[in-house]
Amino acid sequence: MGSERKIHVIVIGAGFAGVNAARALAQEPHMLVTLIDRRNYHLFQPLLYQVAIAALEAPEIAEPVRGMLRKHRRARFLLGDVRRIDRARRQIELEDRKLRYDYLIVATGSRTAQPPVPGVAEHTIGLKDLNDALRVRDRIIAACEEAARERDVERRQSLLHFIIVGGGPTGVELAGMLSEFGRTVLPRDYPEIPAGEFRVSLIDGNELPLATFTSSSRSYAREALATLGVDLHLGVRVDAVTAGGVRTGDGQFVNGYTTFWTAGVVGAEVDGLPEAAHGGRIETTPLLHVPDDPRVYVAGDLNALADPRTGQPYAQVAQVAMQQGRFAAANITLDACFGAPQQPFHYRDYGSVATIGRNSAVVEIGRFRLTGAPAWFGWAGIHIVQLVGFRNRLLVMLNWIFNYFSYAFGVRIMYRKPSFPGD
Amino acid sequence: MGSERKIHVIVIGAGFAGVNAARALAQEPHMLVTLIDRRNYHLFQPLLYQVAIAALEAPEIAEPVRGMLRKHRRARFLLGDVRRIDRARRQIELEDRKLRYDYLIVATGSRTAQPPVPGVAEHTIGLKDLNDALRVRDRIIAACEEAARERDVERRQSLLHFIIVGGGPTGVELAGMLSEFGRTVLPRDYPEIPAGEFRVSLIDGNELPLATFTSSSRSYAREALATLGVDLHLGVRVDAVTAGGVRTGDGQFVNGYTTFWTAGVVGAEVDGLPEAAHGGRIETTPLLHVPDDPRVYVAGDLNALADPRTGQPYAQVAQVAMQQGRFAAANITLDACFGAPQQPFHYRDYGSVATIGRNSAVVEIGRFRLTGAPAWFGWAGIHIVQLVGFRNRLLVMLNWIFNYFSYAFGVRIMYRKPSFPGD
Repeated sequence: MGSERKIHVIVIGAGFAGVNAARALAQEPHMLVTLIDRRNYHLFQPLLYQVAIAALEAPEIAEPVRGMLRKHRRARFLLGDVRRIDRARRQIELEDRKLRYDYLIVATGSRTAQPPVPGVAEHTIGLKDLNDALRVRDRIIAACEEAARERDVERRQSLLHFIIVGGGPTGVELAGMLSEFGRTVLPRDYPEIPAGEFRVSLIDGNELPLATFTSSSRSYAREALATLGVDLHLGVRVDAVTAGGVRTGDGQFVNGYTTFWTAGVVGAEVDGLPEAAHGGRIETTPLLHVPDDPRVYVAGDLNALADPRTGQPYAQVAQVAMQQGRFAAANITLDACFGAPQQPFHYRDYGSVATIGRNSAVVEIGRFRLTGAPAWFGWAGIHIVQLVGFRNRLLVMLNWIFNYFSYAFGVRIMYRKPSFPGD
Repeated sequence: MGSERKIHVIVIGAGFAGVNAARALAQEPHMLVTLIDRRNYHLFQPLLYQVAIAALEAPEIAEPVRGMLRKHRRARFLLGDVRRIDRARRQIELEDRKLRYDYLIVATGSRTAQPPVPGVAEHTIGLKDLNDALRVRDRIIAACEEAARERDVERRQSLLHFIIVGGGPTGVELAGMLSEFGRTVLPRDYPEIPAGEFRVSLIDGNELPLATFTSSSRSYAREALATLGVDLHLGVRVDAVTAGGVRTGDGQFVNGYTTFWTAGVVGAEVDGLPEAAHGGRIETTPLLHVPDDPRVYVAGDLNALADPRTGQPYAQVAQVAMQQGRFAAANITLDACFGAPQQPFHYRDYGSVATIGRNSAVVEIGRFRLTGAPAWFGWAGIHIVQLVGFRNRLLVMLNWIFNYFSYAFGVRIMYRKPSFPGD
């Protein structure tokens, strides 16, 4: 490599890992960075469920990638779909062109898992991107509108029963907010609907929700959900989903026309990487590159590297992704610019937060535990600080202040009307 | 009609006319009002082009109808599509039911005209509802992204050339804002694109834009657009639209992959009303009901009633719609509750405003004329006051303050990628 020539690093994916990697690399004078994504925006996924429940507007949690790279002259953006990685030729193949790399960071994240349960693909809605969130929102509003005109009690109750499969943070947060929507917005907006017919059920295979938290937080979450009026089906499997509801492993059939599927994700693999294991995730060395190829790094949800403290792959959360993105960038810089030895990934755990509903959340930072209203305000503060862009921070904060005092769910706009059984 | 029974008024359409009619009627103790719309929100159409150009978020100009009716106990909302009016039986037919009325107000507004010009349906995008606005936005962003990766100069210039047909307020405002986008956002976000390749053309059959304004305002608008760098094709007809551009009546072919069609609307008729004339609009008596049927009123864009001052039908603008909606409601109340004679519609003209770009607008109130920055701030103030809901007012104002100082166009989020010639 001549001293004149820039080192070209391609980063695939503009999520937490990819954006952090690209920005770190663009600090180095010898680098040229190409950040590629199928979408033109970086999505703040932890608040996606708030768009789904009509509490936030979609663009408030999405930031145009080009705007994020404006101040980084050595980084450029390319809207595109990477079809294949050709590691022998050190190039990637997009729909219309090939691009050569000196180093590659694959940060394509994860997508909703399609488990071998009949009906999941046809009859459930996942929650991974903005279009999903708008579909969920359309579905909630349309179901209430349809229920408001329905005189048949049984059909009306099926329309008003929302089933959430998966008790992770997204499932718990969605269940909590939906339940709040049913208690506050519904009686004011839909006086035609008899009280008590709106129902939210949460189904999870574990005995307690929020599997990655400690058992005291998990018990708190279960109690908080029950207090909010969420029907809990815990420790049961889903055997099948139909247009009319969900059949669980204990032989029950839960009637409901809308099922949201938040039970797990798999790595969003790219052709040309080593064989995936562990739920579609890619094993790397502790240096974050794939075995035998120190030119190709994997960062974020797609990386299956085990946390030495637990022996399990790291959690698929924003914190890990951001740190792996920056770490991969640092290791590439060490190798490419200094010829220095790379460092094994070290995760700095800043703790976990999850919210259940208004004034109700869990915070775990090391041995420190917090629940209830203080945890909820802590959760809100952390998320506003982490949002990208002053404009988004201000708008989200204003929306939350409104929502907190008015129980507003102000974004009750339906773009496209879905159809329901019996239409 | 027994004294116990409520008078049932059905209002079709939740635009400016329908919402104003429904709220006025709901003040009367003897009334029961059903407001029907295919969408669950009232749209503030005068700012729709700002959503299209990524300056505002879609929900900020849309207010859920149910929220608007919350305080009106005697009004209810029904999401539905009215297929036919059966005036003999005094009932309307929706997709799934029939509803009887005592009085009916039809306020379905207007839709983009499909003129007999080849290619308009296939190759242009209109701008009448939120989904249109998001399509326009997706198209603008996708064209810039595609241009950023295109090395063929000719195709790149066609991608970067936006053609707007129609020099009314929407066309002029869209042209002005697009031009501003090209001068401010483009060089910062797309350094790959050579300067000067982004172009906006405005085509109109008249010699001057803004046909409903006085000639001094119209001359000002032409100069302001030219100063903004908009290519003006005035006094020419469009003969055909293709995927590659527009052929005009003077034999020119204007190359450009994106054409927005804002040249005129027609009344959104409903089956069962008298034959439409005047661009799909319905003739009514000055009392606003259709001839020979004092039970059926037409208010807003759909009404073809002539303004006695000009002999022409009233302009299809929000002010006329709001006043006709309230007037129809008043006439129904006079007839139904008091048996009193109805009044002929009297329009109170509060003036017209149109904006061309930053610090550039025209205001006409009676003989009073204003142009330039004072008009622009006047325009902004009037629109914020007229928006529905405190939340929307605040959020729109904040966005405008941001945009004014940062030239931000902060909502540059593409939901769905369209395709272009040569893809």
